[in-house]
Amino acid sequence: MKSLNIGIIGFGTVGCGVFETLKSFNEITVKKIAVKNINKKRNIENFDNSLLTDNPYEIVNNPDIDVIVEVAGGINPIFDVLKTAINNGKHIVTANKELLAKKGSELFSLAKEKNTVILYEAAVAGGIPIIMPIKTILCANKITKIAAILNGTTNYILTKMAEQELSYETALKQAQELGYAETDPTGDVEGFDASYKISILSTISFNKRIDINKIYREGITKITPQDIKSAKELGYKIKLIAMGRVLDDGKIDVRVHPMLVAKKHLLAKVNNATNSIMLSGYPVGDLVFTGAGAGAEPTSSSVVGDLLVLASELEITNSPLPQSICTHNETAEQIDIGDTYNDYYISITTSNNPGTIGIIGTICGKNNINISTIMQKGINKDNTAEIVVLTETSKESDVQNALKELIQSESIKNINNLLRVMN
Amino acid sequence: MKSLNIGIIGFGTVGCGVFETLKSFNEITVKKIAVKNINKKRNIENFDNSLLTDNPYEIVNNPDIDVIVEVAGGINPIFDVLKTAINNGKHIVTANKELLAKKGSELFSLAKEKNTVILYEAAVAGGIPIIMPIKTILCANKITKIAAILNGTTNYILTKMAEQELSYETALKQAQELGYAETDPTGDVEGFDASYKISILSTISFNKRIDINKIYREGITKITPQDIKSAKELGYKIKLIAMGRVLDDGKIDVRVHPMLVAKKHLLAKVNNATNSIMLSGYPVGDLVFTGAGAGAEPTSSSVVGDLLVLASELEITNSPLPQSICTHNETAEQIDIGDTYNDYYISITTSNNPGTIGIIGTICGKNNINISTIMQKGINKDNTAEIVVLTETSKESDVQNALKELIQSESIKNINNLLRVMN
Repeated sequence: MKSLNIGIIGFGTVGCGVFETLKSFNEITVKKIAVKNINKKRNIENFDNSLLTDNPYEIVNNPDIDVIVEVAGGINPIFDVLKTAINNGKHIVTANKELLAKKGSELFSLAKEKNTVILYEAAVAGGIPIIMPIKTILCANKITKIAAILNGTTNYILTKMAEQELSYETALKQAQELGYAETDPTGDVEGFDASYKISILSTISFNKRIDINKIYREGITKITPQDIKSAKELGYKIKLIAMGRVLDDGKIDVRVHPMLVAKKHLLAKVNNATNSIMLSGYPVGDLVFTGAGAGAEPTSSSVVGDLLVLASELEITNSPLPQSICTHNETAEQIDIGDTYNDYYISITTSNNPGTIGIIGTICGKNNINISTIMQKGINKDNTAEIVVLTETSKESDVQNALKELIQSESIKNINNLLRVMN
Repeated sequence: MKSLNIGIIGFGTVGCGVFETLKSFNEITVKKIAVKNINKKRNIENFDNSLLTDNPYEIVNNPDIDVIVEVAGGINPIFDVLKTAINNGKHIVTANKELLAKKGSELFSLAKEKNTVILYEAAVAGGIPIIMPIKTILCANKITKIAAILNGTTNYILTKMAEQELSYETALKQAQELGYAETDPTGDVEGFDASYKISILSTISFNKRIDINKIYREGITKITPQDIKSAKELGYKIKLIAMGRVLDDGKIDVRVHPMLVAKKHLLAKVNNATNSIMLSGYPVGDLVFTGAGAGAEPTSSSVVGDLLVLASELEITNSPLPQSICTHNETAEQIDIGDTYNDYYISITTSNNPGTIGIIGTICGKNNINISTIMQKGINKDNTAEIVVLTETSKESDVQNALKELIQSESIKNINNLLRVMN
């Protein structure tokens, strides 16, 4: 294996995990680490403070460094820092999903031009091997669908809501106390993090560049204990699902939203902070990859794995292997959520009148929606009723139109939630 | 990607699947196919019969052929045929688990000497990517444990026995009618197939050569509907588990036997002919890979994946990459089943006397076995009783001694089954 000198940018949980894991691999030497505050006490035994710099450009302009490990995250200043690194002929190993989702196209084009590689196993699903398998051993496949749990924080919150019958707010607070959720949880709970990851996965799976701004995204903040209870009674669990599909006409459907997942589905069985990716392709059929989606140790497995594979390749040749180079020049034609077809769960508060079910049925029928189940969930003190509707496969825009009509009706007090269903 | 000329040895289900899948990849040309009977009608559209030969040596001695795809199976004549191929400088892609388990050491040494590679993703778990991920992206890990369902036939039979309350014989017959089991099912139901696969997986995971003859192996033919029913009542499913572990002293424990798997365990949720591999390592933690473990299409994904990765590497360099070469020169010190520690399920037929439970408890205690559950399952017409015992973690040799003592007792009519338990 070729000896590599590396520089690490970012020295938080993941950076420290990578540093610790690298201690077992003599062929990789950490030359320099860029941090925000070089005076902060580091919780690493016998740590040599002279490794630190607060100037990342000192690393990417250092001619002794072969590979940049970027675990800092964010766009600024990292985008410019990594462009400088690539312009200087350095290879990149990164865990930065936001950067790849938003600026990947530009970075990969530059890397191709400069004959360097960008590896990013750690950017999606932490320790789960998925990027390299798709690019290597699965490359005979035409992948047509991915459905995945890619965010541990939201899966933890939804698991606790279901197991302990907690409200969203209480479960979020527990997750924050345990370090599963950040003080500002927006990136996780509103689905941004999952949307970056599904954007990356869809790009390499479908061989087309995905526009992150065209990914439909909906978080878990509106899920109520009542939704979870109703789902359970109907034989489902609620999960935040990141999904990518190639439609028959070649258009691409990529989105992130909560779904009712049938209990028999393998993704329904993935609990707490665990991640899981189901991939469907031809000829391989359905595969499911499950493991820890975050954390210092699992993530360091992917970062150091990328580094060791790169060192192994560089021992033999200075040319990047074809499978390490981005070849996705074609842009995906992404469809709007309104044009997708789904099964739906609709939770409605109605007045408790005899004709209400008839009104719901009529409005759905008029909008081409076949109802498969309609369930009254009990009468409230104010003589309103909670009604849950499950539909057969319907067009999203039809469902949205039906909801607009329903809310006009005097019998309908509120549309509490609309969720899509995976059977 | 480099254009490759290949020869295929074996043209059954998998061979035909590979041939069909390769039609999408112009860079790989099938030059010749070795079959047993060149006159047999092939169920492939526009098939060119002149591709066929009944002499595999015609392929491995053909200087125009770069890579041999071997999907024939068995040791003779394949071992000699592939040695000839390697001596002629050809690379090998094989699905032959028996050959690798029994003769891998010799083949890999020869390949290393001749600077050729042997790839075998298809030999373990069909379409599930596991061999290449372990050798590449997971290579930063110290893998300490594998627990897997590696045989689809037995998993299908056990699933049907549980779901439809069938006897082993009836479920086997159904599996045979559906093509999931062969006319002579021995290789599957007695655990030989799973033992070859866990031998290969353990070798690459623990970096030590495994002696297939030292793998403890027990099939599923003795599992009764009563065992499955008792397991269910206790919160378990019965699965044929292939397991490999590194013990604290560096010794290796590799075995194949049926186990009671706790229902909450992800492996308990893998049904029908599906395969699943749980791998535990540091720093990655636990990973689970699930998918189709057999069949023409999934297996062809792995065979063609190996071919395309090889073609990609050969475009850049004629030297095999370090991760494609076998480096397992050290032989594992495998422990005897008698020296392993497990939790146990013991099914016993006793006479229906008041003192029987006391006798079982006393004999277990004398042999250092702590009982965690003891359950009488009902009285038979001949006034015997069925008793099920669950133990805490105990040494196998102690358990075997206890069984010998138990059967001496007048109250104990029969030891019906002894199964190990995974919680």
